[in-house]
Amino acid sequence: MTKLIGISGALRKASTNTGLLRALKDLAPQHVELEIVTLHGIPLYDGDDEAANGKPQSVKDLDARIRAADGVIFACPEYNFSVPGVLKNATDWLSRGSAFLKWKRVGIVGAGAGFFHGTGRSQYHFRQNLQALQAIVMPKPEIFVNHNEDKFDADGNLTDEETRKHLAKWLEAFLEWVEKKP
Amino acid sequence: MTKLIGISGALRKASTNTGLLRALKDLAPQHVELEIVTLHGIPLYDGDDEAANGKPQSVKDLDARIRAADGVIFACPEYNFSVPGVLKNATDWLSRGSAFLKWKRVGIVGAGAGFFHGTGRSQYHFRQNLQALQAIVMPKPEIFVNHNEDKFDADGNLTDEETRKHLAKWLEAFLEWVEKKP
Amino acid sequence: MTKLIGISGALRKASTNTGLLRALKDLAPQHVELEIVTLHGIPLYDGDDEAANGKPQSVKDLDARIRAADGVIFACPEYNFSVPGVLKNATDWLSRGSAFLKWKRVGIVGAGAGFFHGTGRSQYHFRQNLQALQAIVMPKPEIFVNHNEDKFDADGNLTDEETRKHLAKWLEAFLEWVEKKP
Amino acid sequence: MTKLIGISGALRKASTNTGLLRALKDLAPQHVELEIVTLHGIPLYDGDDEAANGKPQSVKDLDARIRAADGVIFACPEYNFSVPGVLKNATDWLSRGSAFLKWKRVGIVGAGAGFFHGTGRSQYHFRQNLQALQAIVMPKPEIFVNHNEDKFDADGNLTDEETRKHLAKWLEAFLEWVEKKP
Repeated sequence: MTKLIGISGALRKASTNTGLLRALKDLAPQHVELEIVTLHGIPLYDGDDEAANGKPQSVKDLDARIRAADGVIFACPEYNFSVPGVLKNATDWLSRGSAFLKWKRVGIVGAGAGFFHGTGRSQYHFRQNLQALQAIVMPKPEIFVNHNEDKFDADGNLTDEETRKHLAKWLEAFLEWVEKKP
Repeated sequence: MTKLIGISGALRKASTNTGLLRALKDLAPQHVELEIVTLHGIPLYDGDDEAANGKPQSVKDLDARIRAADGVIFACPEYNFSVPGVLKNATDWLSRGSAFLKWKRVGIVGAGAGFFHGTGRSQYHFRQNLQALQAIVMPKPEIFVNHNEDKFDADGNLTDEETRKHLAKWLEAFLEWVEKKP
Repeated sequence: MTKLIGISGALRKASTNTGLLRALKDLAPQHVELEIVTLHGIPLYDGDDEAANGKPQSVKDLDARIRAADGVIFACPEYNFSVPGVLKNATDWLSRGSAFLKWKRVGIVGAGAGFFHGTGRSQYHFRQNLQALQAIVMPKPEIFVNHNEDKFDADGNLTDEETRKHLAKWLEAFLEWVEKKP
Repeated sequence: MTKLIGISGALRKASTNTGLLRALKDLAPQHVELEIVTLHGIPLYDGDDEAANGKPQSVKDLDARIRAADGVIFACPEYNFSVPGVLKNATDWLSRGSAFLKWKRVGIVGAGAGFFHGTGRSQYHFRQNLQALQAIVMPKPEIFVNHNEDKFDADGNLTDEETRKHLAKWLEAFLEWVEKKP
């Protein structure tokens, strides 16, 4: 059994980034379990809160679930040419006193609106965060889904078959990354 | 009169980044007013919240204060080699339907612990966010205050005179950037 | 009269990046002169060569032409997710003892093959080089021409009318950037 | 026997970056062979040259030596906040039709002048190049040697014992990275 955890960087219920994770779950072969989580309930990081109350339970729980997984997939939206505050904030909290991603096999996917980049700018910034966290991130293939307004339905479910084929190839490569550890 | 606004990317009361802004305020010449703001009260960006309730009042207020300023100084901490989620999240909200920084003159300062970088990695990522927001960011001089554990007191007040001199030169350059608009 | 210089980061005669500069020259209004240069003749930077022989004449000439221009347009290809060595090397030489781009108004264009990015990754890295050189780079609009294999002829001349329209708008914005200096 | 190749991104004979590689060679345990190469003889990449004459012999030779190694160490100077043109240009040539670094274990070191960064900005850009080349780059520890003017002699030999200790620890970690392939 290979255990994966998929973490969505968007809070919106109909997020196409969360939708990408659901599409990956559907594509996963039988020996692969993919748990999808969102970042609801993780508060903004505040050093004074931390000093007074320690790490929130929601952060500790996510830390434990990530540690239990063989591989982690981040679905990374792009806002203003970089990583969403919501996703970056979660890693700020998680990393406090915990090497939660050290040498963990990690992959990144992302979906965005319009013609260009499809979260490319965001993913490259996020790779630098992941270096800080000592993750071992799959260099290629990459997935940048653009024009998400045409490729997902109103609930954020993937409807585009071309994208599904790309995702299937990406997942195959990622499983090799996780299971064979090149 | 030149109106500046200084925005701290840290929530902690004794933050040395907020302390850098206070030091700049003390150094400002008489014709310069520097208002310091923190990002308390700006919630995590959630597209569903936005659809249901629109922009929070705290975001609208900050938007208005930024627009009223001649120049904006961001104090940018570094977590995990990049911009704090708290700061990135604020720009995610602010940019919704508002070109609040378009062609605004902007400068960046930052303070961090330990020997290297002094928030360098974070500032370069933040510059890419600021490009998305169409700010006109001063290219040089830069300020990277390292070893902040030795240069500020327990309340986050700058005590290091060498750093104060650097800040004074930086502020002089920034005022030229804002007032002469090269 | 507004004098622009367009610098191509590719040496290949039929380069589509040099072709982008020719298309911009054709689009330039009457009061605008756009001189196109390539980087042929600028040797690889070697500190020992520099110590023995000083700056090559080719570098000094380019420095002078850049200084004489009101604005500079770089056509920036992408190799391996970043700036071509040829272009980076030229700026390495040019910057030796010369603030040749300080506060100069600069724009970036780029064309690349295949679906994604259209030199996006390269342009964002190049922006960091340009910050070091203290250029004042137009934040938006940006031009990322993808699928250049379909949009240029075998000599590298632009044939795609959609792209020409984008370039025309980009040039209009760039001229405002250069002439009005916001 | 573990075979490493160390590639210097500087051409200058007394380069402190080449000096870092010599210091690593001296520190290498008996079962480790570290071959040091410079990039002399690799011409500027020109697509027309390539079409007419194919890949230069110097590039083919370096490709073969890199493929024969168990791990690759790049010594990466910083010019203008990024990778030297000389180093970037070599990877531009090497990558033509060759996945010469695919899944190769790679480490980066660097030395620079003055107080800040010690090639930090350059190394982070170079990591993005290495992602394109599908290298598996050690995330941490990192080595940023600043004030190289005080830590090396006039021939570029490391004289600073503190730096040597850091290098020894870095090499130990890198050998684990190469030999155990986490």
